[in-house]
Amino acid sequence: MADHNALPLIILAEKFASLPGIGMKTAHRLAYYVMSMTEKDVEDFATALVSAKKNVHRCKCCMNLTEREICPICSSDGRDKNIICVVEAPRDVTAFERTREYHGVYHVLHGLISPLDNITPDKIHIKELIARISDGKTKEVIMATNPTVEGDTTAMYIAGLLKPLGVKVTRLAFGLPVGANLEYADEVTLYKALENRNDM
Amino acid sequence: MADHNALPLIILAEKFASLPGIGMKTAHRLAYYVMSMTEKDVEDFATALVSAKKNVHRCKCCMNLTEREICPICSSDGRDKNIICVVEAPRDVTAFERTREYHGVYHVLHGLISPLDNITPDKIHIKELIARISDGKTKEVIMATNPTVEGDTTAMYIAGLLKPLGVKVTRLAFGLPVGANLEYADEVTLYKALENRNDM
Repeated sequence: MADHNALPLIILAEKFASLPGIGMKTAHRLAYYVMSMTEKDVEDFATALVSAKKNVHRCKCCMNLTEREICPICSSDGRDKNIICVVEAPRDVTAFERTREYHGVYHVLHGLISPLDNITPDKIHIKELIARISDGKTKEVIMATNPTVEGDTTAMYIAGLLKPLGVKVTRLAFGLPVGANLEYADEVTLYKALENRNDM
Repeated sequence: MADHNALPLIILAEKFASLPGIGMKTAHRLAYYVMSMTEKDVEDFATALVSAKKNVHRCKCCMNLTEREICPICSSDGRDKNIICVVEAPRDVTAFERTREYHGVYHVLHGLISPLDNITPDKIHIKELIARISDGKTKEVIMATNPTVEGDTTAMYIAGLLKPLGVKVTRLAFGLPVGANLEYADEVTLYKALENRNDM
Protein backbone atom coordinates (compact mmCIF):
# COMPACT_ATOMS: atom_id res chain seq x y z
CA MET A 1 0.00 0.00 0.00
CA ALA A 2 1.35 3.38 -0.94
CA ASP A 3 1.64 6.31 1.46
CA HIS A 4 -1.91 7.46 0.79
CA ASN A 5 -3.09 4.47 2.80
CA ALA A 6 -3.80 4.58 6.51
CA LEU A 7 -0.75 3.46 8.51
CA PRO A 8 -2.64 0.93 10.72
CA LEU A 9 -3.90 -0.72 7.50
CA ILE A 10 -0.38 -0.94 6.08
CA ILE A 11 0.89 -2.48 9.31
CA LEU A 12 -1.95 -5.03 9.37
CA ALA A 13 -1.34 -5.96 5.71
CA GLU A 14 2.34 -6.53 6.52
CA LYS A 15 1.38 -8.85 9.38
CA PHE A 16 -0.83 -10.90 7.06
CA ALA A 17 1.94 -10.98 4.45
CA SER A 18 4.34 -12.43 7.04
CA LEU A 19 2.20 -15.60 7.14
CA PRO A 20 3.31 -18.42 4.81
CA GLY A 21 1.63 -18.53 1.40
CA ILE A 22 0.12 -15.04 1.69
CA GLY A 23 1.52 -12.46 -0.73
CA MET A 24 1.17 -8.68 -0.52
CA LYS A 25 -1.93 -8.56 -2.75
CA THR A 26 -3.83 -11.11 -0.66
CA ALA A 27 -2.58 -9.40 2.52
CA HIS A 28 -4.07 -6.08 1.39
CA ARG A 29 -7.33 -7.79 0.50
CA LEU A 30 -7.48 -9.38 3.96
CA ALA A 31 -6.65 -6.06 5.68
CA TYR A 32 -9.49 -4.38 3.79
CA TYR A 33 -11.77 -7.26 4.75
CA VAL A 34 -10.95 -6.76 8.44
CA MET A 35 -12.28 -3.20 8.04
CA SER A 36 -15.66 -4.66 7.08
CA MET A 37 -15.82 -7.01 10.10
CA THR A 38 -17.59 -5.91 13.29
CA GLU A 39 -15.38 -4.60 16.09
CA LYS A 40 -16.36 -7.63 18.22
CA ASP A 41 -15.34 -10.11 15.51
CA VAL A 42 -11.96 -8.40 15.12
CA GLU A 43 -11.40 -8.49 18.89
CA ASP A 44 -12.37 -12.18 18.97
CA PHE A 45 -9.85 -12.86 16.21
CA ALA A 46 -7.12 -11.02 18.13
CA THR A 47 -7.99 -12.93 21.31
CA ALA A 48 -7.94 -16.27 19.45
CA LEU A 49 -4.42 -15.50 18.18
CA VAL A 50 -3.00 -14.65 21.59
CA SER A 51 -4.92 -17.42 23.36
CA ALA A 52 -3.74 -20.13 20.95
CA LYS A 53 -0.12 -19.02 21.32
CA LYS A 54 -0.35 -18.75 25.13
CA ASN A 55 -2.35 -21.86 25.97
CA VAL A 56 -1.19 -24.37 23.40
CA HIS A 57 2.14 -26.10 23.96
CA ARG A 58 3.78 -29.44 23.29
CA CYS A 59 2.47 -32.58 25.01
CA LYS A 60 5.08 -33.72 27.56
CA CYS A 61 4.86 -37.23 26.13
CA CYS A 62 4.44 -37.11 22.34
CA MET A 63 5.28 -33.43 21.58
CA ASN A 64 2.01 -32.92 19.69
CA LEU A 65 0.32 -29.56 20.27
CA THR A 66 -2.21 -29.51 23.09
CA GLU A 67 -3.62 -27.16 25.73
CA ARG A 68 -3.31 -29.90 28.43
CA GLU A 69 -0.15 -31.25 30.03
CA ILE A 70 -0.63 -34.64 28.34
CA CYS A 71 -2.57 -34.66 25.05
CA PRO A 72 -5.90 -36.53 24.63
CA ILE A 73 -4.26 -39.26 22.53
CA CYS A 74 -1.46 -40.01 25.02
CA SER A 75 -3.92 -39.97 27.93
CA SER A 76 -6.57 -42.12 26.19
CA ASP A 77 -7.15 -45.64 27.53
CA GLY A 78 -8.20 -46.80 24.07
CA ARG A 79 -4.80 -46.28 22.46
CA ASP A 80 -1.96 -48.80 22.34
CA LYS A 81 0.97 -46.98 24.02
CA ASN A 82 3.40 -49.61 22.76
CA ILE A 83 3.07 -48.67 19.10
CA ILE A 84 4.56 -45.28 18.28
CA CYS A 85 4.09 -43.55 14.94
CA VAL A 86 6.86 -41.00 14.34
CA VAL A 87 5.81 -37.97 12.27
CA GLU A 88 7.32 -34.66 11.24
CA ALA A 89 4.59 -32.24 12.33
CA PRO A 90 1.22 -31.94 14.12
CA ARG A 91 -0.57 -31.78 10.75
CA ASP A 92 0.58 -35.36 10.08
CA VAL A 93 -1.15 -36.51 13.28
CA THR A 94 -4.35 -34.95 11.94
CA ALA A 95 -3.88 -36.82 8.64
CA PHE A 96 -3.51 -40.19 10.41
CA GLU A 97 -6.41 -39.50 12.76
CA ARG A 98 -8.63 -38.88 9.74
CA THR A 99 -8.08 -42.49 8.63
CA ARG A 100 -9.62 -43.68 11.95
CA GLU A 101 -7.57 -46.85 11.47
CA TYR A 102 -4.56 -46.15 13.66
CA HIS A 103 -4.89 -46.95 17.34
CA GLY A 104 -1.34 -46.48 18.58
CA VAL A 105 0.21 -43.23 19.79
CA TYR A 106 2.42 -40.65 18.06
CA HIS A 107 5.72 -38.90 18.41
CA VAL A 108 6.01 -35.50 16.72
CA LEU A 109 9.59 -34.59 15.75
CA HIS A 110 8.79 -30.94 14.87
CA GLY A 111 11.14 -31.01 11.92
CA LEU A 112 13.31 -33.31 9.82
CA ILE A 113 17.08 -33.66 9.71
CA SER A 114 18.36 -31.30 7.02
CA PRO A 115 22.06 -30.39 7.22
CA LEU A 116 21.66 -27.83 4.41
CA ASP A 117 19.13 -25.92 6.53
CA ASN A 118 21.33 -26.39 9.60
CA ILE A 119 18.77 -28.74 11.20
CA THR A 120 20.88 -31.35 12.96
CA PRO A 121 19.44 -34.38 14.86
CA ASP A 122 19.71 -32.54 18.20
CA LYS A 123 17.33 -29.81 16.93
CA ILE A 124 14.34 -32.13 16.55
CA HIS A 125 12.69 -34.26 19.28
CA ILE A 126 14.72 -37.45 18.81
CA LYS A 127 16.11 -37.76 22.33
CA GLU A 128 12.57 -37.55 23.74
CA LEU A 129 11.66 -40.52 21.51
CA ILE A 130 14.65 -42.52 22.76
CA ALA A 131 13.61 -41.69 26.36
CA ARG A 132 10.06 -42.91 25.64
CA ILE A 133 11.14 -46.33 24.42
CA SER A 134 13.71 -46.81 27.20
CA ASP A 135 11.09 -48.61 29.31
CA GLY A 136 11.51 -51.58 26.97
CA LYS A 137 7.74 -52.04 26.46
CA THR A 138 7.56 -50.56 22.95
CA LYS A 139 6.55 -53.20 20.40
CA GLU A 140 6.93 -51.16 17.24
CA VAL A 141 8.04 -47.74 16.02
CA ILE A 142 6.52 -46.74 12.66
CA MET A 143 8.59 -44.19 10.77
CA ALA A 144 5.94 -42.06 9.05
CA THR A 145 8.02 -39.19 7.72
CA ASN A 146 7.43 -38.01 4.14
CA PRO A 147 9.12 -39.87 1.26
CA THR A 148 11.55 -37.01 0.62
CA VAL A 149 15.32 -36.79 1.02
CA GLU A 150 14.94 -35.24 4.49
CA GLY A 151 12.15 -37.65 5.48
CA ASP A 152 14.12 -40.72 4.40
CA THR A 153 17.32 -39.45 6.05
CA THR A 154 15.52 -38.83 9.33
CA ALA A 155 13.79 -42.22 9.21
CA MET A 156 17.08 -44.02 8.59
CA TYR A 157 18.91 -42.06 11.27
CA ILE A 158 16.28 -42.86 13.91
CA ALA A 159 16.06 -46.50 12.79
CA GLY A 160 19.82 -46.72 13.25
CA LEU A 161 19.47 -45.51 16.84
CA LEU A 162 16.51 -47.71 17.74
CA LYS A 163 17.46 -51.05 16.22
CA PRO A 164 20.43 -51.66 18.60
CA LEU A 165 17.91 -51.21 21.45
CA GLY A 166 15.97 -54.20 20.09
CA VAL A 167 12.92 -52.22 18.95
CA LYS A 168 11.02 -53.23 15.82
CA VAL A 169 11.20 -50.29 13.41
CA THR A 170 8.96 -50.12 10.31
CA ARG A 171 8.49 -47.61 7.50
CA LEU A 172 5.26 -46.61 5.75
CA ALA A 173 4.66 -48.47 2.47
CA PHE A 174 5.31 -46.52 -0.71
CA GLY A 175 3.56 -47.38 -3.96
CA LEU A 176 0.75 -46.22 -6.20
CA PRO A 177 -1.79 -43.99 -4.50
CA VAL A 178 -5.30 -45.46 -4.53
CA GLY A 179 -7.23 -44.29 -7.59
CA ALA A 180 -4.03 -43.37 -9.44
CA ASN A 181 -3.38 -43.95 -13.10
CA LEU A 182 -0.28 -46.07 -13.95
CA GLU A 183 0.36 -43.91 -16.98
CA TYR A 184 0.91 -40.79 -14.90
CA ALA A 185 2.91 -42.35 -12.05
CA ASP A 186 6.50 -41.11 -11.82
CA GLU A 187 9.33 -43.62 -12.24
CA VAL A 188 10.37 -43.80 -8.60
CA THR A 189 6.82 -44.41 -7.37
CA LEU A 190 6.31 -47.09 -10.01
CA TYR A 191 9.62 -48.73 -9.09
CA LYS A 192 8.63 -48.72 -5.40
CA ALA A 193 5.24 -50.21 -6.27
CA LEU A 194 6.94 -52.99 -8.27
CA GLU A 195 9.58 -53.65 -5.61
CA ASN A 196 7.00 -53.88 -2.83
CA ARG A 197 4.49 -55.97 -4.78
CA ASN A 198 2.27 -58.30 -2.74
CA ASP A 199 0.91 -61.81 -3.32
CA MET A 200 -2.70 -61.93 -4.43
CA MET B 1 -9.22 -30.29 13.04
CA ALA B 2 -10.53 -33.36 14.81
CA ASP B 3 -11.16 -33.55 18.54
CA HIS B 4 -7.59 -34.64 19.27
CA ASN B 5 -6.52 -31.08 18.48
CA ALA B 6 -6.17 -28.38 21.07
CA LEU B 7 -9.33 -26.27 21.31
CA PRO B 8 -7.59 -22.86 21.06
CA LEU B 9 -5.97 -24.08 17.82
CA ILE B 10 -9.33 -25.16 16.39
CA ILE B 11 -10.85 -21.78 17.29
CA LEU B 12 -7.93 -19.92 15.69
CA ALA B 13 -8.18 -22.01 12.51
CA GLU B 14 -11.90 -21.18 12.30
CA LYS B 15 -11.09 -17.47 12.57
CA PHE B 16 -8.62 -17.73 9.70
CA ALA B 17 -11.14 -19.73 7.67
CA SER B 18 -13.69 -16.93 8.10
CA LEU B 19 -11.46 -14.64 5.99
CA PRO B 20 -12.25 -14.54 2.25
CA GLY B 21 -10.27 -16.93 0.05
CA ILE B 22 -8.91 -18.97 2.97
CA GLY B 23 -10.18 -22.56 3.14
CA MET B 24 -10.02 -24.92 6.12
CA LYS B 25 -6.73 -26.52 5.03
CA THR B 26 -4.94 -23.19 4.68
CA ALA B 27 -6.53 -22.02 7.94
CA HIS B 28 -5.07 -25.03 9.79
CA ARG B 29 -1.68 -24.42 8.23
CA LEU B 30 -1.79 -20.78 9.35
CA ALA B 31 -2.89 -21.76 12.87
CA TYR B 32 0.06 -24.17 13.13
CA TYR B 33 2.33 -21.44 11.82
CA VAL B 34 1.18 -19.06 14.56
CA MET B 35 2.40 -21.68 17.06
CA SER B 36 5.91 -21.28 15.62
CA MET B 37 5.89 -17.47 15.92
CA THR B 38 7.32 -15.76 19.00
CA GLU B 39 4.83 -14.65 21.64
CA LYS B 40 5.72 -11.02 20.90
CA ASP B 41 5.04 -11.41 17.16
CA VAL B 42 1.65 -12.96 17.88
CA GLU B 43 0.76 -10.14 20.26
CA ASP B 44 1.86 -7.56 17.66
CA PHE B 45 -0.38 -9.27 15.10
CA ALA B 46 -3.34 -9.16 17.50
CA THR B 47 -2.66 -5.49 18.28
CA ALA B 48 -2.43 -4.65 14.56
CA LEU B 49 -5.85 -6.25 13.98
CA VAL B 50 -7.60 -4.32 16.74
CA SER B 51 -5.72 -1.08 16.03
CA ALA B 52 -6.58 -1.10 12.31
CA LYS B 53 -10.26 -1.69 13.07
CA LYS B 54 -10.36 0.96 15.83
CA ASN B 55 -8.31 3.75 14.24
CA VAL B 56 -9.14 3.47 10.57
CA HIS B 57 -12.42 4.95 9.36
CA ARG B 58 -13.83 6.64 6.27
CA CYS B 59 -12.52 10.03 5.20
CA LYS B 60 -15.26 12.62 5.78
CA CYS B 61 -14.76 13.91 2.27
CA CYS B 62 -14.00 11.01 -0.13
CA MET B 63 -14.98 7.96 2.03
CA ASN B 64 -11.58 6.31 1.46
CA LEU B 65 -10.11 4.56 4.51
CA THR B 66 -7.83 6.72 6.65
CA GLU B 67 -6.78 7.18 10.26
CA ARG B 68 -7.18 10.98 10.00
CA GLU B 69 -10.39 12.96 9.74
CA ILE B 70 -9.61 13.99 6.15
CA CYS B 71 -7.41 11.62 4.14
CA PRO B 72 -3.95 12.66 2.79
CA ILE B 73 -5.28 12.85 -0.78
CA CYS B 74 -8.22 15.12 0.05
CA SER B 75 -6.01 17.35 2.23
CA SER B 76 -3.13 17.56 -0.27
CA ASP B 77 -2.49 20.92 -1.95
CA GLY B 78 -1.09 19.16 -5.00
CA ARG B 79 -4.37 17.51 -6.03
CA ASP B 80 -7.06 19.01 -8.24
CA LYS B 81 -10.20 18.96 -6.06
CA ASN B 82 -12.38 19.69 -9.08
CA ILE B 83 -11.78 16.34 -10.76
CA ILE B 84 -13.37 13.43 -8.90
CA CYS B 85 -12.70 9.80 -9.78
CA VAL B 86 -15.54 7.57 -8.53
CA VAL B 87 -14.47 4.02 -7.56
CA GLU B 88 -16.06 1.01 -5.91
CA ALA B 89 -13.57 0.30 -3.14
CA PRO B 90 -10.38 1.56 -1.41
CA ARG B 91 -8.30 -1.02 -3.35
CA ASP B 92 -9.22 0.82 -6.56
CA VAL B 93 -7.71 4.03 -5.15
CA THR B 94 -4.48 2.10 -4.57
CA ALA B 95 -4.58 0.88 -8.18
CA PHE B 96 -4.94 4.43 -9.55
CA GLU B 97 -2.27 5.82 -7.21
CA ARG B 98 0.15 3.20 -8.55
CA THR B 99 -0.10 4.76 -12.02
CA ARG B 100 1.21 8.09 -10.56
CA GLU B 101 -0.63 9.78 -13.45
CA TYR B 102 -3.85 10.84 -11.76
CA HIS B 103 -3.78 14.12 -9.87
CA GLY B 104 -7.45 14.64 -9.05
CA VAL B 105 -9.28 13.32 -5.99
CA TYR B 106 -11.46 10.24 -5.41
CA HIS B 107 -14.86 9.22 -4.18
CA VAL B 108 -15.19 5.70 -2.80
CA LEU B 109 -18.71 4.25 -3.10
CA HIS B 110 -18.02 1.20 -0.90
CA GLY B 111 -20.11 -1.03 -3.11
CA LEU B 112 -21.97 -1.15 -6.41
CA ILE B 113 -25.69 -1.10 -7.09
CA SER B 114 -26.86 -4.71 -7.24
CA PRO B 115 -30.59 -5.27 -6.77
CA LEU B 116 -30.09 -9.06 -6.71
CA ASP B 117 -27.86 -8.69 -3.63
CA ASN B 118 -30.28 -6.14 -2.17
CA ILE B 119 -27.75 -3.32 -2.63
CA THR B 120 -29.87 -0.32 -3.59
CA PRO B 121 -28.46 3.15 -4.46
CA ASP B 122 -29.08 4.40 -0.89
CA LYS B 123 -26.75 1.72 0.52
CA ILE B 124 -23.63 3.08 -1.18
CA HIS B 125 -22.11 6.58 -0.81
CA ILE B 126 -23.93 8.29 -3.69
CA LYS B 127 -25.60 11.08 -1.72
CA GLU B 128 -22.19 12.09 -0.29
CA LEU B 129 -20.95 12.45 -3.90
CA ILE B 130 -23.93 14.63 -4.84
CA ALA B 131 -23.25 16.78 -1.76
CA ARG B 132 -19.60 17.16 -2.80
CA ILE B 133 -20.40 18.51 -6.25
CA SER B 134 -23.17 20.81 -5.00
CA ASP B 135 -20.63 23.69 -4.72
CA GLY B 136 -20.68 23.92 -8.53
CA LYS B 137 -16.88 23.92 -8.84
CA THR B 138 -16.49 20.32 -10.05
CA LYS B 139 -15.13 20.21 -13.59
CA GLU B 140 -15.35 16.48 -14.21
CA VAL B 141 -16.52 13.27 -12.57
CA ILE B 142 -14.77 10.15 -13.90
CA MET B 143 -16.80 6.97 -13.45
CA ALA B 144 -14.13 4.34 -12.75
CA THR B 145 -16.23 1.37 -11.67
CA ASN B 146 -15.37 -2.07 -13.10
CA PRO B 147 -16.72 -3.00 -16.56
CA THR B 148 -19.25 -5.47 -15.08
CA VAL B 149 -23.04 -5.43 -15.00
CA GLU B 150 -23.01 -3.87 -11.52
CA GLY B 151 -20.20 -1.45 -12.40
CA ASP B 152 -21.92 -0.26 -15.59
CA THR B 153 -25.30 0.02 -13.85
CA THR B 154 -23.84 2.12 -11.05
CA ALA B 155 -21.92 4.34 -13.50
CA MET B 156 -25.05 4.96 -15.56
CA TYR B 157 -27.20 5.60 -12.49
CA ILE B 158 -24.78 8.19 -11.11
CA ALA B 159 -24.27 9.79 -14.54
CA GLY B 160 -28.06 10.18 -14.75
CA LEU B 161 -28.07 12.05 -11.43
CA LEU B 162 -25.08 14.29 -12.21
CA LYS B 163 -25.75 15.36 -15.80
CA PRO B 164 -28.85 17.45 -14.95
CA LEU B 165 -26.60 19.35 -12.49
CA GLY B 166 -24.41 20.40 -15.42
CA VAL B 167 -21.37 18.31 -14.43
CA LYS B 168 -19.19 16.68 -17.07
CA VAL B 169 -19.29 12.92 -16.49
CA THR B 170 -16.82 10.56 -18.20
CA ARG B 171 -16.24 6.81 -18.14
CA LEU B 172 -12.91 4.94 -18.24
CA ALA B 173 -11.93 3.72 -21.72
CA PHE B 174 -12.38 0.02 -22.40
CA GLY B 175 -10.29 -1.80 -25.00
CA LEU B 176 -7.39 -4.18 -25.33
CA PRO B 177 -5.13 -4.28 -22.28
CA VAL B 178 -1.56 -3.21 -23.09
CA GLY B 179 0.57 -6.23 -24.02
CA ALA B 180 -2.49 -8.33 -24.82
CA ASN B 181 -2.79 -10.74 -27.71
CA LEU B 182 -5.67 -10.10 -30.15
CA GLU B 183 -6.14 -13.83 -30.56
CA TYR B 184 -7.06 -14.31 -26.91
CA ALA B 185 -9.20 -11.20 -26.42
CA ASP B 186 -12.87 -11.93 -25.70
CA GLU B 187 -15.50 -10.68 -28.16
CA VAL B 188 -16.85 -7.87 -26.01
CA THR B 189 -13.39 -6.43 -25.32
CA LEU B 190 -12.51 -6.62 -29.01
CA TYR B 191 -15.79 -4.93 -29.97
CA LYS B 192 -15.12 -2.14 -27.43
CA ALA B 193 -11.59 -1.72 -28.81
CA LEU B 194 -12.97 -1.44 -32.35
CA GLU B 195 -15.76 0.92 -31.35
CA ASN B 196 -13.43 3.24 -29.44
CA ARG B 197 -10.66 3.22 -32.06
CA ASN B 198 -8.50 6.37 -32.24
CA ASP B 199 -6.89 8.32 -35.09
CA MET B 200 -3.21 7.65 -35.56
